[in-house]
Amino acid sequence: MLNLNQVKVVLVEPSHPGNIGATARAMKNMGLSNLALVSPKRYPNVEATALASGADDVLQAALVCDSVDEALQDCSYIYATTARHRKLGWPSCDVRTAATEICSRELDSSKKIAILFGCERVGLDNDTLTRAQTHIYIPTNPVYSSLNLSQAVQLMTYELKMAHDGLNPVLPVEAREAPLASYDIVEGFYQHLESMLTHIYFLDPKQPKMLMGRLRRLFNRAELCETEVHILRGICKAVLSKTPKD
Amino acid sequence: MLNLNQVKVVLVEPSHPGNIGATARAMKNMGLSNLALVSPKRYPNVEATALASGADDVLQAALVCDSVDEALQDCSYIYATTARHRKLGWPSCDVRTAATEICSRELDSSKKIAILFGCERVGLDNDTLTRAQTHIYIPTNPVYSSLNLSQAVQLMTYELKMAHDGLNPVLPVEAREAPLASYDIVEGFYQHLESMLTHIYFLDPKQPKMLMGRLRRLFNRAELCETEVHILRGICKAVLSKTPKD
Repeated sequence: MLNLNQVKVVLVEPSHPGNIGATARAMKNMGLSNLALVSPKRYPNVEATALASGADDVLQAALVCDSVDEALQDCSYIYATTARHRKLGWPSCDVRTAATEICSRELDSSKKIAILFGCERVGLDNDTLTRAQTHIYIPTNPVYSSLNLSQAVQLMTYELKMAHDGLNPVLPVEAREAPLASYDIVEGFYQHLESMLTHIYFLDPKQPKMLMGRLRRLFNRAELCETEVHILRGICKAVLSKTPKD
Repeated sequence: MLNLNQVKVVLVEPSHPGNIGATARAMKNMGLSNLALVSPKRYPNVEATALASGADDVLQAALVCDSVDEALQDCSYIYATTARHRKLGWPSCDVRTAATEICSRELDSSKKIAILFGCERVGLDNDTLTRAQTHIYIPTNPVYSSLNLSQAVQLMTYELKMAHDGLNPVLPVEAREAPLASYDIVEGFYQHLESMLTHIYFLDPKQPKMLMGRLRRLFNRAELCETEVHILRGICKAVLSKTPKD
């Protein structure tokens, strides 16, 4: 069973230092300790420290990064929280279902599961959203749905604790070869794939439409293992070496 | 079934006006509107208004009282939240169980159910606790259990909304675009893929190994829809048209 310290809460471009502190406290209240901050607007900051209250240890251990990619390096599964319905349908579930799924993952102890939270005003952008296998939404009042950031973290971590403390059905063994490819390996493949598709003029960088998003969704759904990523990269490489340069 | 407006959130002697505003927002996010404030330290206050964000209506309609008794006048059931174990054993349950119980109460529409929250520093005093039929606790990390007041309200109101909505997690959005591709369409794609891989010398027909088997397993696991097959065939075609014939 997953250890709650293997869940990494990732705040992407948080604006208010108070929310960072309140997030640290909310996490510790539920037994989580792994926090990453991607390009926080103001941090470190006295307000963050004040709101963290007795959870300064979580705050001090927080990883501060320049990019989402950096924050996700050691993560095998990526979840993204979102309030809005997106044009491109994506696998999604409510926070309770997600917590149960996360807690029943079998994961190497060196690996983590990331949960992304967007900035206070606009949430996560589409580019970041397509990095996730699954989107998580919190059921709210349809006419007033915008939760405070630290409240969203509180609900997510509460559901994780509840799931961890009691509801742990083990998911069926997946039809794949172990081990599951980590985020950076899969992301590297997507970069290769995009270059290759551009090279053969299948993808027009000026009019990308949703092509990469659709392909990411397809492959994320399949939960690629390392061998498979290796094969797929090999195909991209072979195509590039066989097609003439302009 | 109970209407969520029949649940009255009662903050007893809240110290920080920010928590009052954040409470109003947390309530409205979950569809509650009935707030009472017993002897708030500083209220009205700009910080309360700021933190209420779009929930100023809940804040403005809040009943400000001098005593707990006054706040409870129209209430048929009283619940009290508490973090600590009390010497005096009292009927108590966790927040999820309480929410289900509250939402299944049959109640005259003029009556309410109160949920009491104590002040930030010490919670509810024993005198107030004995006014309740039931005590509610929120499961937390035993070594760091003190939740922020508005976070506690958020968790309580979230569980009320979840119970009210019928403990019915919305069915997951399908992780694909319907309709699912039929067998012959997928099989046609595999033929195309195999030709393309042979053409770029990634697949040696004399020594195919398990390559096609691995790729089939990957794509079968993903359960391709028609649009996806269309895209994947398009990629194969583009590769073929860009690579020179021998």
